[in-house]
Amino acid sequence: MPIEIPDVVIDRLPLYYRLLSRLESEGRGVISSQELGEELGVTPAQIRKDLSYFGRFGKQGRGYSVQRLAEELRLILGLDKRWRVVVVGIGRLGRAISSYPGFEGQGFDIVGRYDANPAVIGTQLDGQEIRDARLLEADLSARPADIGIVAVPAEYAQQVVDTLTRGGVKAVLNYTPARVQVPPDTELKHINPVVFLQSMTYHLKLRGRARA
Amino acid sequence: MPIEIPDVVIDRLPLYYRLLSRLESEGRGVISSQELGEELGVTPAQIRKDLSYFGRFGKQGRGYSVQRLAEELRLILGLDKRWRVVVVGIGRLGRAISSYPGFEGQGFDIVGRYDANPAVIGTQLDGQEIRDARLLEADLSARPADIGIVAVPAEYAQQVVDTLTRGGVKAVLNYTPARVQVPPDTELKHINPVVFLQSMTYHLKLRGRARA
Repeated sequence: MPIEIPDVVIDRLPLYYRLLSRLESEGRGVISSQELGEELGVTPAQIRKDLSYFGRFGKQGRGYSVQRLAEELRLILGLDKRWRVVVVGIGRLGRAISSYPGFEGQGFDIVGRYDANPAVIGTQLDGQEIRDARLLEADLSARPADIGIVAVPAEYAQQVVDTLTRGGVKAVLNYTPARVQVPPDTELKHINPVVFLQSMTYHLKLRGRARA
Repeated sequence: MPIEIPDVVIDRLPLYYRLLSRLESEGRGVISSQELGEELGVTPAQIRKDLSYFGRFGKQGRGYSVQRLAEELRLILGLDKRWRVVVVGIGRLGRAISSYPGFEGQGFDIVGRYDANPAVIGTQLDGQEIRDARLLEADLSARPADIGIVAVPAEYAQQVVDTLTRGGVKAVLNYTPARVQVPPDTELKHINPVVFLQSMTYHLKLRGRARA
């Protein structure tokens, strides 16, 4: 039976991968957990512990093979395959997200963009027609997608998520501030800028106290 | 000397706060670590451990006082004060972010919006004039800000971050895919959708394997 790997570890793997992938393109052969830690703001002990969940990558005192570790992380994270992504809600945020230049090179193909606004439906974005959100479920049954990105107004978030999961989508990235529910077999992540700001103000406040 | 609290714990506090704040507004008096855990997808043991860093909030077998815990988290996270935020880069993404409805109610005031595009400079957004990015540093010396949100094209990210930190900003939320450096006394968070998608594809891939 595979060991249960904590979500915080999984969440760090893309950061490891990103750094290793850059080092690989720069031609680096080996990297120590010390240097990985410095680059990523994590302790070397944490790095060794995180990577130990996935087998023995490093040699004691020799560091990690950049190429081998990057390749393993590609497999672990499923980056060796292509993932079909639909974006629902093509307002300012949805447009910005679905034109994000980093998706394609990482195996994420945006295969559909949907909106409910008649003024937006039928218009083109990056050479793709924006489709009527009412067609989403039928489209998904005809051509399944793996991931749904939700950038609709908060009050429609749950309804869109339900449509996505009924249509077989197994991973939802929710950009709305709404809390949404997904079935137990579906992955869910939220991107809420307030949450990021609040974990920074914790530190700012601590320092303010120290100054006072 | 205060105990060093792990960043992963700090990062979970806004999620605790958000849930407790909702429960508080619904009039809930007490909540168990079990229920907090279910709502947040964290084990009850983890919740008790996280909160134990900040003192004794719960009574054995009685659960946590929602109001007291929410109030403590407000203080811990610095949400009892107002934070001045500038947004640099008012393209699609910057517009979406800086019009995000969740900031104000949480103590974040957007006090300046900046762009380098002459067609955008001087136009209004939410009743505020978009200012020339070249004025950012002078503006910050006249009226300091706490937090900078960066939504410029990746190639300008470091330059904007340098201007922000020279201007006294101590927390940077980087929406660009660029890796940027900040001085040691400055907080830095990245919001990169690829990183969120990759930690979900890890799970999708695992399941794919299980099905095979």
